[in-house]
Amino acid sequence: MCQLLGMNCNSPTDISFSFEGFRRRAGLTDQHSDGFGIAFFEGKGVRIFRDNQPAAFSPVGDVVKNYRIKSFNVIAHIRKATEGAVNIENTHPFIREIWGENWVFAHNGTVENLEVCKNNHYQPIGTTDSERAFCCMAASLKKRFSSKPSEMEIFNAIVEISEKIAENGVFNFILSNGEWMIARCATKLHYVTRKYPFCTVFREDDEVIDFSQYTTEKDKVTIITTQPLTKNEDWTEMKNGGYVFFKDGDKIFEIIGTLPPCKSHV
Amino acid sequence: MCQLLGMNCNSPTDISFSFEGFRRRAGLTDQHSDGFGIAFFEGKGVRIFRDNQPAAFSPVGDVVKNYRIKSFNVIAHIRKATEGAVNIENTHPFIREIWGENWVFAHNGTVENLEVCKNNHYQPIGTTDSERAFCCMAASLKKRFSSKPSEMEIFNAIVEISEKIAENGVFNFILSNGEWMIARCATKLHYVTRKYPFCTVFREDDEVIDFSQYTTEKDKVTIITTQPLTKNEDWTEMKNGGYVFFKDGDKIFEIIGTLPPCKSHV
Repeated sequence: MCQLLGMNCNSPTDISFSFEGFRRRAGLTDQHSDGFGIAFFEGKGVRIFRDNQPAAFSPVGDVVKNYRIKSFNVIAHIRKATEGAVNIENTHPFIREIWGENWVFAHNGTVENLEVCKNNHYQPIGTTDSERAFCCMAASLKKRFSSKPSEMEIFNAIVEISEKIAENGVFNFILSNGEWMIARCATKLHYVTRKYPFCTVFREDDEVIDFSQYTTEKDKVTIITTQPLTKNEDWTEMKNGGYVFFKDGDKIFEIIGTLPPCKSHV
Repeated sequence: MCQLLGMNCNSPTDISFSFEGFRRRAGLTDQHSDGFGIAFFEGKGVRIFRDNQPAAFSPVGDVVKNYRIKSFNVIAHIRKATEGAVNIENTHPFIREIWGENWVFAHNGTVENLEVCKNNHYQPIGTTDSERAFCCMAASLKKRFSSKPSEMEIFNAIVEISEKIAENGVFNFILSNGEWMIARCATKLHYVTRKYPFCTVFREDDEVIDFSQYTTEKDKVTIITTQPLTKNEDWTEMKNGGYVFFKDGDKIFEIIGTLPPCKSHV
């Protein structure tokens, strides 16, 4: 399957250290080599870089590394194709405008039988189950709320809609509108919040960074990812059916899943 | 105001020569320096590169130059901001999903008083008049046709909708769904179709290319732009209210405008 990476923080942050560790898994240390994408929110705008080459070797990946865009919210995805050809339209993250905002979505897993959503306003462009699921979610939200509701209403609605979609398969995802980030776990998702006092962190490939050199006392950075990227941080392992809603690096809402992650689906 | 560049062709083509000439106007030879964007269709997918720096000096512009993406349809825009701050969400080209396709739109001019479109499904994310106009167009199309109609129906509908929008100001635009490209002229827009026998072309900055070295007899490449980019080609100057619909580099439908371009608006 695929792997997910998300970042939500309270000041514009450079995701390079995490992304460089993450993209090694796309062709170098693991086989998530069927393209990648990374979306950076800048205000209400989004830059998305995509490639159908493995992220580890992609010149587009090098651009992301060298350009060092700072952002409050970033979502990245490395793909191991299970459904849909390897091409740009099937590359996560997917994006749609909802209530005058960019919503960005990346999925890990496979969900089938979403034919019920066929006549929705939001239609998939590519052929992945992931984009179909996102379009179902977007359409359901738009049907419930003609204009943007409160954050708690959004969270509750997304939980309700996602539980229905999750009946059809494995539904790990990260979603953001540039203000907040929601993560849902089915089989595998972890997060860690970096805040003061910042310390020295060892990435799984032994790259080292002393975050205290790059941060202030007020900074808070939450990283969400399929598989922990560092060796000496206290990553929280989410459970099946678990949801977290982060804003400014803080956890605002949470549903703790009840079932143990279904390892066989990973 | 801004400047537009579009390319529609019958085989995947590298737009570098034209784009390099075009982006000189964004900070080097002219003052369209308030950001730029360029969208490359790849199948039904799109890569969009944007920056709020002047295209002539932007590292993102350099990526576009060096990466040499080949595409059937490309739309680029260099901005001289008249309405809306200089930021990513206000950077053309704009994109929306219509009938399961990516539609990409770039505008030159200013159109006001589009409040009538306020409760549409498609809502602007940024604060430009251009994105408001595009959302109006997208919503009107979706209201008329619940699923994708024929190309002639699309062309006729876009002409009708655009004429209404154009009552509110200056509406030069280029629009593509990855299969075709539609251009409308209000004040200034030119196009040229390059085909066999290909010849040596001199760009306005005296860069030279011999297209016969890079093409086959079957290739057809149409370039649409605000101001001609080359000195020795026979550019067609469009008229106010003129529309062209290109597919595979060929002109399929056309409405020849009747009024002379209103130079005072350029």
